[in-house]
Amino acid sequence: MRRRVERPAAARPQAAVKALTGVDGRRRVVIEAVSPEVDGGRFPAKRAIGETVTVEADVFADGHDALAAILKHKFLPIPAGVPPARPGGASKAAEGPDWIETPLTPLVNDRWRGDFPVTELGRYVFTVEGWVDHFETWSRQLAKRVQAGQDVKVELEVGARMVDQAAARADGKAADAAQLLALSKSLRAGAAATLDGELTQLMRRYSADRDFSTTYAREVEVVVEPVKARFSTWYELFPRSAGSPGKHGTFTEVEQLLPGIAGMGFDVLYLPPIHPIGKTHRKGANNKPAAAGEPGSPWAIGSAEGGHKAVHPELGTLDDFRHLVQTAADQGVDVALDIAFQCSPDHPYTREHPEWFKHRPDGSIQYAENPPKKYEDIYPFDFENEHWRELWQELLSIVLFWAEQGVRVFRVDNPHTKPFSFWEWLIGELKRRHPDSILLAEAFTRPKVMYRLAKAGFSQSYTYFAWRNTAYELYQYFTELAQPPIREFFRPSLWANTPDILTEYLQTGGRPAFQARLILAATLGATYGIYGPAFELLESRPREQGSEEYLDSEKYQLRAWERDDPNSLSELVTIVNRIRHENPALQTDRGLRFHPTENEQLLAYSKSTPDNANVVLTVVNVDPHHVQRGMVNLPLDELGLEPDRPYQAHELITGARYLWNGPRNFVEINPHALPGQIFRFRRRVRSERDFEYFL
Amino acid sequence: MRRRVERPAAARPQAAVKALTGVDGRRRVVIEAVSPEVDGGRFPAKRAIGETVTVEADVFADGHDALAAILKHKFLPIPAGVPPARPGGASKAAEGPDWIETPLTPLVNDRWRGDFPVTELGRYVFTVEGWVDHFETWSRQLAKRVQAGQDVKVELEVGARMVDQAAARADGKAADAAQLLALSKSLRAGAAATLDGELTQLMRRYSADRDFSTTYAREVEVVVEPVKARFSTWYELFPRSAGSPGKHGTFTEVEQLLPGIAGMGFDVLYLPPIHPIGKTHRKGANNKPAAAGEPGSPWAIGSAEGGHKAVHPELGTLDDFRHLVQTAADQGVDVALDIAFQCSPDHPYTREHPEWFKHRPDGSIQYAENPPKKYEDIYPFDFENEHWRELWQELLSIVLFWAEQGVRVFRVDNPHTKPFSFWEWLIGELKRRHPDSILLAEAFTRPKVMYRLAKAGFSQSYTYFAWRNTAYELYQYFTELAQPPIREFFRPSLWANTPDILTEYLQTGGRPAFQARLILAATLGATYGIYGPAFELLESRPREQGSEEYLDSEKYQLRAWERDDPNSLSELVTIVNRIRHENPALQTDRGLRFHPTENEQLLAYSKSTPDNANVVLTVVNVDPHHVQRGMVNLPLDELGLEPDRPYQAHELITGARYLWNGPRNFVEINPHALPGQIFRFRRRVRSERDFEYFL
Repeated sequence: MRRRVERPAAARPQAAVKALTGVDGRRRVVIEAVSPEVDGGRFPAKRAIGETVTVEADVFADGHDALAAILKHKFLPIPAGVPPARPGGASKAAEGPDWIETPLTPLVNDRWRGDFPVTELGRYVFTVEGWVDHFETWSRQLAKRVQAGQDVKVELEVGARMVDQAAARADGKAADAAQLLALSKSLRAGAAATLDGELTQLMRRYSADRDFSTTYAREVEVVVEPVKARFSTWYELFPRSAGSPGKHGTFTEVEQLLPGIAGMGFDVLYLPPIHPIGKTHRKGANNKPAAAGEPGSPWAIGSAEGGHKAVHPELGTLDDFRHLVQTAADQGVDVALDIAFQCSPDHPYTREHPEWFKHRPDGSIQYAENPPKKYEDIYPFDFENEHWRELWQELLSIVLFWAEQGVRVFRVDNPHTKPFSFWEWLIGELKRRHPDSILLAEAFTRPKVMYRLAKAGFSQSYTYFAWRNTAYELYQYFTELAQPPIREFFRPSLWANTPDILTEYLQTGGRPAFQARLILAATLGATYGIYGPAFELLESRPREQGSEEYLDSEKYQLRAWERDDPNSLSELVTIVNRIRHENPALQTDRGLRFHPTENEQLLAYSKSTPDNANVVLTVVNVDPHHVQRGMVNLPLDELGLEPDRPYQAHELITGARYLWNGPRNFVEINPHALPGQIFRFRRRVRSERDFEYFL
Repeated sequence: MRRRVERPAAARPQAAVKALTGVDGRRRVVIEAVSPEVDGGRFPAKRAIGETVTVEADVFADGHDALAAILKHKFLPIPAGVPPARPGGASKAAEGPDWIETPLTPLVNDRWRGDFPVTELGRYVFTVEGWVDHFETWSRQLAKRVQAGQDVKVELEVGARMVDQAAARADGKAADAAQLLALSKSLRAGAAATLDGELTQLMRRYSADRDFSTTYAREVEVVVEPVKARFSTWYELFPRSAGSPGKHGTFTEVEQLLPGIAGMGFDVLYLPPIHPIGKTHRKGANNKPAAAGEPGSPWAIGSAEGGHKAVHPELGTLDDFRHLVQTAADQGVDVALDIAFQCSPDHPYTREHPEWFKHRPDGSIQYAENPPKKYEDIYPFDFENEHWRELWQELLSIVLFWAEQGVRVFRVDNPHTKPFSFWEWLIGELKRRHPDSILLAEAFTRPKVMYRLAKAGFSQSYTYFAWRNTAYELYQYFTELAQPPIREFFRPSLWANTPDILTEYLQTGGRPAFQARLILAATLGATYGIYGPAFELLESRPREQGSEEYLDSEKYQLRAWERDDPNSLSELVTIVNRIRHENPALQTDRGLRFHPTENEQLLAYSKSTPDNANVVLTVVNVDPHHVQRGMVNLPLDELGLEPDRPYQAHELITGARYLWNGPRNFVEINPHALPGQIFRFRRRVRSERDFEYFL
């Protein structure tokens, strides 16, 4: 952009100029610390459809010139040759991958920010580009010179030449060129330019500055998943207990439970494995060897009747299952299947593909074990076998088979005992065909393993929530999960109980404990679940002292449940789920803040939408035995509340309304009434007649 | 390593196996979060020769198998064709780049650690490799089975087969093979192996496990620089003031000052630019236009007498300069030159290479400015000019020219006004030829710009130290600098004053202020400097109220200094520098810890060597006016002091010794006596006669 005296080029030094090729030294802008970015771009960040990706980057250059920076993004179409999962599902993909550009805005300390919406399922990429903006630099400096009363004649000529150059580049667009030439003329006439926004945009469009722009070294990926990947409400049940007492339940009987489940506000119904159950070493009630007629564990998959692509005959047929999936969908409920990649000794794979298993010197297949414990009803796959490629293909084909039956949500059993690269591949292949699929990782293991599985592509992850029962533990854990980059790839799923997890807190805390855990799960997590009807019916008897296993667990036997028990928590569940649906702040984990309560038994936290239009405060008494009192301290500014005006705290479970003042407010919680309170804040607005209303 | 039943390979599915090529799914180990690593490996970490690089990484796999992990490192020889800078300087490089392997040790939470020493100047690379250790897994499980009283006959056979397989791979080494075969025999004989370390090593050496090992995706670079890059003590002076009053000083007169400078404990003597000074728009005393005979600013480089490769005639000849460099070296002092890439209007480049400068529409060369301020005595280079390659080459040739005169330490003026990529290239080229060179970046600008320059290769960086005067500011700033990854690439240089920086604190605080800033700089920073003799002679008169410029600054005029002034701080400087040389803890910035004092005017911090053999506590009263008292709270454990035994606090400036007890100890500091105390802790040891000594 700058005028240069034209001279013959000096003879080029021969030697070390070589080292300079490939780099244009005139690219002065540097771009660093781009976010969201996971492990230096190795893994994509995650978003749900309809969300916004807020991108930040450090953008700076040497010297003091003004800079311009833009965010560039595009949707990555699914590669040709893979048919779209559902007709029309990948329509926009065909339009091709042009970058869409959005300006970045400088914040402080060389940080810039911009955002783009994600409106398609699949993969987006973004990057950042920045350059030195000479015209803007000139313009700012001119203002200072004029203010200091300096003679700016030469400076105006400098600017006019920049504008002329831009006009020359606007050759195609006569109107733009004319507008620019008018500008340079007025500059030369001595008008110290008062540039309007349109002219600035024109100058930026036609300036040569971008010839020496810097583009960030990477195209950063963002995976876009369905809204339920972020916000979903899970109900787990054993279909075999859906029947009349003593009888094996069926898919058809599960259908009859759907209105109740949907009515409580659940939108995912998760079924433990529905496949034929092995007979060899079958387990019976309370994990003892099975007696004749006992149904066995659904996780001991495979028998003469089939393997992972078959349906357990007592549950019904594949048609019955598809009917259940459709009926559920009609009520807004996704059926989630359990993907447990392991076999009973009777699984067809053990005969057809013995090479996929480990063998012992005595010729037998190696059963699962955690020495000295043995699990002889389960054969794990050997992922180190030489035929691992065929094994991977077969396992993918299982997931694709169920996807073809209409299933889009999968709960994956023990993913941490299969290689990370396997999951990354499998999820990638599944999502290429079914970008609307959602996978929940059931990996109760060390934190880095859990995080890596999430990076590899799981949409959601079980968490340590069940074992975080004190206020401080909850604060600490959910603060960790909210940190970048963890929040970019790890979506927590909070389970109040599971068939494997009946915590000591639930065993000993009675009804208040169940209520507290429900309220915590539903408000701390955008996604949570319960295993029912054990949960709402307050089932709390452990198999034995010190165990987290249920007595008479459904894992090994049928159970008859008194679903209409008047003591059931189903009404509270219904209310809490309704609150979740009515308050967008609870539908994301992004806006979580903890607040001091001056009582270590009281946990207080708020969630809010970015614009603070919806702010929900939850206060839970984690002591299920005693009344607790405390002062909740709120950062009114951050929550969009005016410091010197009262505001209404509307308790959403009971409907009670309180008028609060200032940052410190008193809360008293009697766990025997209800151990938690969920407040929505309503700000005062004035009507034309000066009545006071709260929004 | 596991026995597999051999079967004919199943027919390969055709389609999507393609997607699996290039990945071996059996590589189950994952390696993440390697440190030290700067910006995902984009920039090297820095070390000084003789240091140790401690490497950490997350290493884990699916499942519960035992893992093995190693650190691999090698020295990168200088590419052929570039002659070594000094004979023998790159001798080991020729030996070739084989990886040296060191075991990594597991810490907690899947974190592993190991280290390697750096003994050569130049570049090292390291990486991490990990694999599933099946024999170790088997061995651990066997122990549990035996403990549980299980029949382990089949398990012993499993182990024996692993050992047989290893023995088969040990074909070349008959002794190893025999040892292994003896082991498998004893396993088959029923001896539940009690493996000693040697056998474990043998098994690891010959196992096939490493065939499926994972190597970290990157080879991470470490630049190794001379010890003075980490630990150096700088003295800046204007050579033209080295002469007798009123006369222009010479290099020969600077030589006469060397014994005094070295005697005070300085090991780098930094000279402002020594080149011919321009006449056009020359500046005179107190930044006014020069009158006839005034010497001008040394930063206005270049006149008819020459440019950046010439010596200002009044200072002497190039021979005189080389003599000074050699004489200084003989006294342990490196002469540091000022690299100021800018020109006076009289510089030969302005005639020979007008294309390297910006031109105004009136044909004149654009002078430096920060509108509305104009610096008409300085022409900056235009790094965006089309002939930038030639400019870069010429600027490199300047540095190489001075390196050829024996200079190895460079203080670079305003590097933040030249492109980052230029510095990265220039420093790389310089260090390829002279890996023993050290560059100090004088960039007083925004933090990210300063950090980026350090990443680009500057060995040391000026800091905001001069403007951090309260205890809290100092705590905050040096805590930031000690964080990873900043500490891996940014080595702070702390200046108590410079010719441009006479802080308000020094202007108003009197002798205690000078003493406090000296003690702070020398003990907070492994590298620090003063501009003398202004500093030790307590020069504190600003050019005007509110200015940080010196009155009668040497930047524009000669000054006559009373170097023997009895009020000089030279004795304190000498003592403090001796303390630095005697205490290794002060020679690195790694072991810095701040300690609460219960008085906001008292700053306390310790530095310690990794083994706590040397622990130095500094307490400074930052209030130059009043006595301050406080309790210093020390984490005795971390400092290697026994909590229930007295320990000696030996004050190293005065020699006073105090017996301290427990973590809280009283300190009182009168700034008019001395505003800082430097304690070395001595632990009590017992002699054979039970006298008490302190080490």
